[in-house]
Amino acid sequence: MKKLSIILASTLLPVLTMASEADLPIPDLSNSYFQKFGMNGHTLLAWGIFIIALGMGFGLWQFMRIKKLPAHKSMLAVSEVIYQTCKTYLYQQGKFLVILFAIIGAAIFYYFFGLNHMEFSKVMLVLLWSILGILGSYGVAWFGIRINTLANSRTSFAALKSKPWNVVSIPLQAGMSVGVLLITVELIMMLIILLFVPGESAGACFVGFAIGESLGASALRIAGGIFTKIADIGSDLMKIVFAIGEDDPRNPGVIADCVGDNAGDSVGPTADGFETYGVTGVALISFIVLAMGIDFQSTLIVWIFAMRILMVFTSIFSYQVNQAFSVSRYENKNDFDFEAPLTSLVWITSIVSIIVTYIVSYLLIGDLNAGSGLWWKLATIISFGTLAAAIIPEFTKAFTSSKSRHVNEIVTASREGGASLTILSGMVAGNFSAFWKGMVIMGLMAGAFAISNMGLDQIMNYPAIFSFGLVAFGFLGMGPVTIAVDSYGPVTDNAQSVFELSQIEKIQGISSEIKSDFGFEPDFSRGKHYLEANDSAGNTFKATAKPVLIGTAVIGATTMIFAIILLLDQLGLLKLSLTDAPVILGFIAGGAVVFWFSGASIQAVTTGAYRAVEFIKRNIKLDKDEADIEDSKAVVKICTQYAQSGMWNIFGVIFSLTLAFAFFDPNFFVAYLISIAVFGLFQAMYMANAGGSWDNAKKVVEVDLKEKGTPLHEATVVGDTVGDPYKDTSSVALNPIIKFSTLFGLLAVEIAVKMSQQAKTAGATDWSPLIGFIFLVIGLFFVYRSFYGMRIKK
Amino acid sequence: MKKLSIILASTLLPVLTMASEADLPIPDLSNSYFQKFGMNGHTLLAWGIFIIALGMGFGLWQFMRIKKLPAHKSMLAVSEVIYQTCKTYLYQQGKFLVILFAIIGAAIFYYFFGLNHMEFSKVMLVLLWSILGILGSYGVAWFGIRINTLANSRTSFAALKSKPWNVVSIPLQAGMSVGVLLITVELIMMLIILLFVPGESAGACFVGFAIGESLGASALRIAGGIFTKIADIGSDLMKIVFAIGEDDPRNPGVIADCVGDNAGDSVGPTADGFETYGVTGVALISFIVLAMGIDFQSTLIVWIFAMRILMVFTSIFSYQVNQAFSVSRYENKNDFDFEAPLTSLVWITSIVSIIVTYIVSYLLIGDLNAGSGLWWKLATIISFGTLAAAIIPEFTKAFTSSKSRHVNEIVTASREGGASLTILSGMVAGNFSAFWKGMVIMGLMAGAFAISNMGLDQIMNYPAIFSFGLVAFGFLGMGPVTIAVDSYGPVTDNAQSVFELSQIEKIQGISSEIKSDFGFEPDFSRGKHYLEANDSAGNTFKATAKPVLIGTAVIGATTMIFAIILLLDQLGLLKLSLTDAPVILGFIAGGAVVFWFSGASIQAVTTGAYRAVEFIKRNIKLDKDEADIEDSKAVVKICTQYAQSGMWNIFGVIFSLTLAFAFFDPNFFVAYLISIAVFGLFQAMYMANAGGSWDNAKKVVEVDLKEKGTPLHEATVVGDTVGDPYKDTSSVALNPIIKFSTLFGLLAVEIAVKMSQQAKTAGATDWSPLIGFIFLVIGLFFVYRSFYGMRIKK
Repeated sequence: MKKLSIILASTLLPVLTMASEADLPIPDLSNSYFQKFGMNGHTLLAWGIFIIALGMGFGLWQFMRIKKLPAHKSMLAVSEVIYQTCKTYLYQQGKFLVILFAIIGAAIFYYFFGLNHMEFSKVMLVLLWSILGILGSYGVAWFGIRINTLANSRTSFAALKSKPWNVVSIPLQAGMSVGVLLITVELIMMLIILLFVPGESAGACFVGFAIGESLGASALRIAGGIFTKIADIGSDLMKIVFAIGEDDPRNPGVIADCVGDNAGDSVGPTADGFETYGVTGVALISFIVLAMGIDFQSTLIVWIFAMRILMVFTSIFSYQVNQAFSVSRYENKNDFDFEAPLTSLVWITSIVSIIVTYIVSYLLIGDLNAGSGLWWKLATIISFGTLAAAIIPEFTKAFTSSKSRHVNEIVTASREGGASLTILSGMVAGNFSAFWKGMVIMGLMAGAFAISNMGLDQIMNYPAIFSFGLVAFGFLGMGPVTIAVDSYGPVTDNAQSVFELSQIEKIQGISSEIKSDFGFEPDFSRGKHYLEANDSAGNTFKATAKPVLIGTAVIGATTMIFAIILLLDQLGLLKLSLTDAPVILGFIAGGAVVFWFSGASIQAVTTGAYRAVEFIKRNIKLDKDEADIEDSKAVVKICTQYAQSGMWNIFGVIFSLTLAFAFFDPNFFVAYLISIAVFGLFQAMYMANAGGSWDNAKKVVEVDLKEKGTPLHEATVVGDTVGDPYKDTSSVALNPIIKFSTLFGLLAVEIAVKMSQQAKTAGATDWSPLIGFIFLVIGLFFVYRSFYGMRIKK
Repeated sequence: MKKLSIILASTLLPVLTMASEADLPIPDLSNSYFQKFGMNGHTLLAWGIFIIALGMGFGLWQFMRIKKLPAHKSMLAVSEVIYQTCKTYLYQQGKFLVILFAIIGAAIFYYFFGLNHMEFSKVMLVLLWSILGILGSYGVAWFGIRINTLANSRTSFAALKSKPWNVVSIPLQAGMSVGVLLITVELIMMLIILLFVPGESAGACFVGFAIGESLGASALRIAGGIFTKIADIGSDLMKIVFAIGEDDPRNPGVIADCVGDNAGDSVGPTADGFETYGVTGVALISFIVLAMGIDFQSTLIVWIFAMRILMVFTSIFSYQVNQAFSVSRYENKNDFDFEAPLTSLVWITSIVSIIVTYIVSYLLIGDLNAGSGLWWKLATIISFGTLAAAIIPEFTKAFTSSKSRHVNEIVTASREGGASLTILSGMVAGNFSAFWKGMVIMGLMAGAFAISNMGLDQIMNYPAIFSFGLVAFGFLGMGPVTIAVDSYGPVTDNAQSVFELSQIEKIQGISSEIKSDFGFEPDFSRGKHYLEANDSAGNTFKATAKPVLIGTAVIGATTMIFAIILLLDQLGLLKLSLTDAPVILGFIAGGAVVFWFSGASIQAVTTGAYRAVEFIKRNIKLDKDEADIEDSKAVVKICTQYAQSGMWNIFGVIFSLTLAFAFFDPNFFVAYLISIAVFGLFQAMYMANAGGSWDNAKKVVEVDLKEKGTPLHEATVVGDTVGDPYKDTSSVALNPIIKFSTLFGLLAVEIAVKMSQQAKTAGATDWSPLIGFIFLVIGLFFVYRSFYGMRIKK
C-alpha cells in the first residue's frame, strides 16, 4: 500500500511544474438589490445560517428521540456489537483517507502555491477547506452509522407489537435525522465560505472543499460497496449450502453482513449525498461567476442559497405533514403497504418544494431587471428537477417493487428456467428501467433547455448549461427526503438481522418479561413477517434514491466542466464539435473507463466473496447455537482486506487516467468527462435496478410465496447475489467517481493547457503528450492489476 | 402481425409529404490518371469484375470439394434433417423480409418519386437495387447454411480418424468458401452500380442497395439470434434437469438447437458481414463524392475498389499459405492446439494485406499530385484498421479462450461460489474486455487521426472523418478470413451434435462397416474428444469476429452520417458542439435505446426459452432411444414464434424512434446516431465476451476437468445459458441495427430538415415537432409492448 502511494505521489511531481491561475472571485454579496427586505444579500444569508441551525436542531432532536425508544437488552446487545465493528471499520477508512488526502493535498498545494503563486496563508486556507470537505463526508457517515445502529434494534423491537406503524416510522425518522443533518452541515459550511472567506480566495476554497468531499465520498462509496457485498454474498450463499435461515447466528458471515449494511448502504449514500449536494452547488456558483454579468452574480447567488436554506424546511414540513397523515391512517392497522407512507412523503415534498420554489423565486428575484419573467423561468427549470426526483422513484418501483410486473416476471421465469432465467429476466428489468428513466431525464432536460431558450441569453452565455445545472439543483431540492428514504433500507435490513441474532424468541420467559417491562404481549411470528416485508420496502426505496444521485452527476456534468470549456474558449482552443476527432475519441475513452470500473469493482467483490465463502464453509459450527465472535471477526477482516485493495487499484486508475487524458488534449478530455457521465448514468441505472429487482424477487419467494428452501428460492438467491455488487458496489460508486474525475480534472486540464501554451510561446518542446503517455501507462498498469492482481489465489 | 405492418405503413404517410433531393452523383471514372496502366479507371475496374469472378470460382470450388468429402449415411441423414428444418426457417424469414421491404420500399419510393420527383424508371432502378441488397444478404445466408450443413457431417465423420487435422480443416474450408463468396458477390454488385448505372442515379442506387442489405441483415440477425438462443437454453437446461448428456437425441430441443446454430451463428454473421462490407464501402464513396475536389474523386474511388478486389486475393493467398504450412505441421499429429491454425491464418492474412495495401497504393496513387506521400498516408491509415482486425481477436482470446486466465478465474470462482460467482466472474471478463478493446480501437483511431492531420486537408474537408472511414475499410480488408473464422463455430458446434444424434456408435458392426467402406478404423471416444475441443476453438473464434463487425459500425459511424453533417453545414444549421444542449440530449437518447434493445432482445429469448423448457419438460420421453420428430418440430415452432414476435417489436421501435428523433432536431439526431454507435460498441463487446467466457468455462469443466454432472458443471451451465442471448442475440444484432438506423435516418433527417426549412420560408406552421412526437408515441408503444406484450403468460 505504502509503495503504491509513493508511486502515485512521485509520478505527480512532473505534472506540477507549471504555473496557472484559478480565478473564481466570488462577488460582494452586499449589493443593494435585497434592500426591499431591509437588508443586503450578505445579511440575508447570515440570517440564513441562524435558520439552518434550527434545522440542524431538528435533526438532532430526532436523533435523541430515537435514542430514547425502548428495546430489549438482547437486541441492544446485538446492535452494540454491530456498532463497535462499524467503528473499527470506519477508523480504518479514516486512515486511508489520510493517505489519499496526502496525495491529493500535495496536488492542490503545488497547484496553488508552487504554480499559482498564491500566498501561503491562502493556500493553507484552501487546504483547510479541502480537509473540511473530507471531514464533512466522513463525519456525516459517522452520524449515519450511529443513528442507524440505534434505530435498528428499536425497529426490531417495535415489530413485536402487533401494530406495525412504528416499524415504518422509526427507520424513516432516523433517515430524516440523517438527511436534515447532512444538508444543514453542508449548507453551513458553504455559507461560511461564501460569507466569511474573502472573495478572491472563496472560489479556490469552494473548489478545494468540493474536491475534498468528492474524494471522501468516492473512497467511502467504493470501499463500503465492496465490503458490504462480500459479506452479503458470503452469508447468503451459506443459506443454500447449509440450508440455514436468513441471519442464522451460527453463520459467521452474518455480523459482517450487518456491518456491511451500514458500511455500504448507510455510509455510502450519506457521504455521497453530502458530496453531491455540495458539488452541484459549487458548479452553479462557478457558472454564475464565469458566465454572467457582474450585475446579476451576487443576486443570483443569494437567491440560490436562500432557496437551498428554505428547501430544508420544505422537507421538514412535508415530513411532519406526512407523519400526521400516516399516523392517523396506519397507526391502528395490523397490516398495510409499507411502501405507501414513503411514496406519499416523496410526493408531498416534491409538490411543496415546487410551490415554495415559485413563491421564493417570485419574492426574491421577481422584480429583477433581467428580461421579463426571469423568476418563473428559473423556477420552472428547477421544478423540472424536483419533479424528476419524484417521478424517477415511481419508475424505479415499476421495475423493482415486489408488486411490479418485472419482479413477478423474474419469479415466473425462475420457476421453469432456474437461475439462468432469473438472471436474464432481472437484466431485462434493468435494461428497460435504464431506457425509461433515461428518456424521462432527457425529457425533463429538454424541457429545461426549451425554457432556457426563452431569453435567458440576455443575462448569460451558454444558458442551456445553466439550465442543466439548475435541473440538477432541483433534483436535490428535496435532499433530506431523498436521503431519508435511502437510509431507510439499511435500518430495516439490520432490524431483521438484529431480530435473528438476538435469538429473543428462545429466551426463557421472554413474553412475560416483555409484558412486565414494556407493557405489551410480543408476537414473534408476526414481527418476523413485518420485518421481512419492511425489508422489501427498504430494498425498493434504496433502489429509488440511486438514480436520483447518479442523475445529478450527468445533468450537472456539463455545468461542472464549464470552467474548462470557458478556459478553452478564451484561449481559442474550444473544438468540441462531433466532427472533431478528439471528441469522438473522448467518448470511446469514457465508455471504456465505465466498463472497466464495473469490472474492477465486481472483481474485488468476487474474490472477497470467494474467500469469505471458503472460510465460512470450513469454519461454520452447525452444532453450536450462537455466533462465534472470532470467526465473525475473521470474516470482517476478509471483507476489509479486499475492500481496501480493490479501492487502491481503482483510485490508481482514476487518478492516473484523469491526468493522462487531461494532458493528451483538453477537448478530448471534456468529451471524456461527458462520456463517463452519460455512460455512468446508464450503467448505474441498469445495475441498480437489475439488482433491486433480483433482491425483491427473492423477497417475493420468501415472504409472499413462502417457498424458502425450494429450487425456486435457490434460483432467486443466485439472482440476489449477482445483483449485490451490481446495485450496491458498482452502480452507486459511479456518481462520486464521475464527480471526483471532473473536479480533479479541472486542476489537471488547466495545468496541461497552460503548460502547452507556454511551451508554444517560448518555442520550447511541449512535454504534455509525453507526460500524458506516462500517466496512461501507469493507469493501464493499475487496470491490469485490478484484475490480474485481484485474482483468486489457490 | 399484419395489423402491425399496417400501423407502421400508415404512420409513414404524413412523413412523406415533402420534396427533397438525394444528390450523390458518381463521377465519371474514365479519367486519364490511370493511363500509366494503358487503360482508364473504368476499364481497370471492368477488368476487376473478371478477376473477382475468379475469386468466386475459388469459393464455389471449395464448396464442391466439401460436398465430395465422405461421411457415414447415419451422419448424412442427420445433417439433411437439419438442413431441411433450416430451409423451413429461411422460407419463413423470407416472407418476413417481403413485408418489411414493403414498408421500407414505400418510404424509398415516396422519397425519390413523390418528393424528389426523380424519373419513374430511375426510382424503379433504386428500388431494384434495394431489393438486390436484401436478396444479397438473404442469398449469402442461404449459401452459408447450405455449405455448413454439408460440412457438419463431414467434420463429424473426419473426427473418427485418429488424426484430427481434417476436423479443423473442413470447417475452415467451409468458412473460406462462405467468406470469399460473400465478398465477391458484394463487390460485383457494387462494381455493377459503379460502372454501369449512370452517374446521376448511381449514388441513389448505392443508398438503396445499402438500406436493403442493412434491412435484410438486421432482420436475419435479430430473428436468428432469438431463435438460436431459445433452442440453446431450452436444450441446455434439460441437461441439468434430467441429467442427460449434450445433444442427447431423446431431448427434443436438440434438433432446434442445431437449426439455431445455423439460423443464428451462420445466417446472422454471413448476412451481417455482407451488409457491413457493403455499407462501409458506400459510406466511403459518399464521403469522397461529398468532401473532395472533383479531380481526386474518380481516382480515389478506383483506388478503393482496386484495393478491395485485390484484398480478396490476399485472403485466398494467405489461406493457401497457411493451409500448406498447417498440413505439414499438423496432418500427422494426434493432438494439437486447434486454435493455432486459425490464429496463424489471421496473422498471415493481416501481414500480407498490409504489405499489399502499401504496394497497391504506391502503384495506383503513388504519383497522384495531391501533397507529398498521399499514398503512404492513406495506406498507413488503412493498415491501422487491418491491424485492428488481427489485434482484437488476440484481445478477445485473452478473455474468452479456454486457456485464458479470465476463463480460469470463472471456473475457480464457481467452485466455491456456485452459479452466483460464475455469473459475476464472467461479467468481469466482459467488462475488462470492453475496456481493453475500447482502448485499442481508440488508439488506432487516434493514430489514423494523427496521420490525417499531416496535410490531408489539402484535398478534402474533414480529413479526420475520412480517416475513420478508411480504418473501418481496413478493418474489413481481410473480410473473407474474418468471416471464415466466424463461420467455423457453427460447423464445429453442429458436428458435435451430428455425432450424438446419429448414434453411430450404437450401429451394429459399425467399425467393420467403416473399415470396409471408408478404409479406416474409427475411434469414437477420441473422436468425441476432438469434436468437443474443436467446439471450444469455435467458441473462441466466433467471439473474435463479433468485435470486428461491431467495431466497423462505430468507426464508420461518423463517415456514414457525413451526408447529414454536410447537409446541416450547407444550411447553416450545424451545431454539434458539446455545449449545445441537443447534442447532450442526443447522447442520452442513444444510451437509452441501446439499453432498451439489450432488454427487448433478451426478453424475447427468456419468454421463448421458458416456453421451450416447459414444453420439453412435459414431453421428453426418457425411455425412448431416439428423437421424437413431432416434439422436435414443436420446439422449432416455439423458437420461430418468439423470434418473429420479438423482431416485430424491435423493428417497430427502431423504425419509429429513428423517424421521431430525426424530426425533433437534426443535430440531436446526429448525436443520437453517434451515441448508439459508441454505446453499442461497448455493450456488444461486453456482452459478446462475457458470453464467450462463460461458454468456454463450461467447456473447461466438461473437456479439461471432465467434471460433467457435478455442481461445478451445473454452475457453469447457468453461466453459459445466461451468456447465450448476451453473445448471440443482443450483442451481434447491435451492428446491423446501428447501420440500419443510420442509413434509414439519412432519408428521415433530410425529409425533416427540408420540411422545416420550407415551412420557415413560406411562413407556415412547422409540423415536424408534432410528427416527431407522434412517432415518439408509437415508438414508446412498441417499447412498452416489447416487454409487457412479451411476458410469460400463465
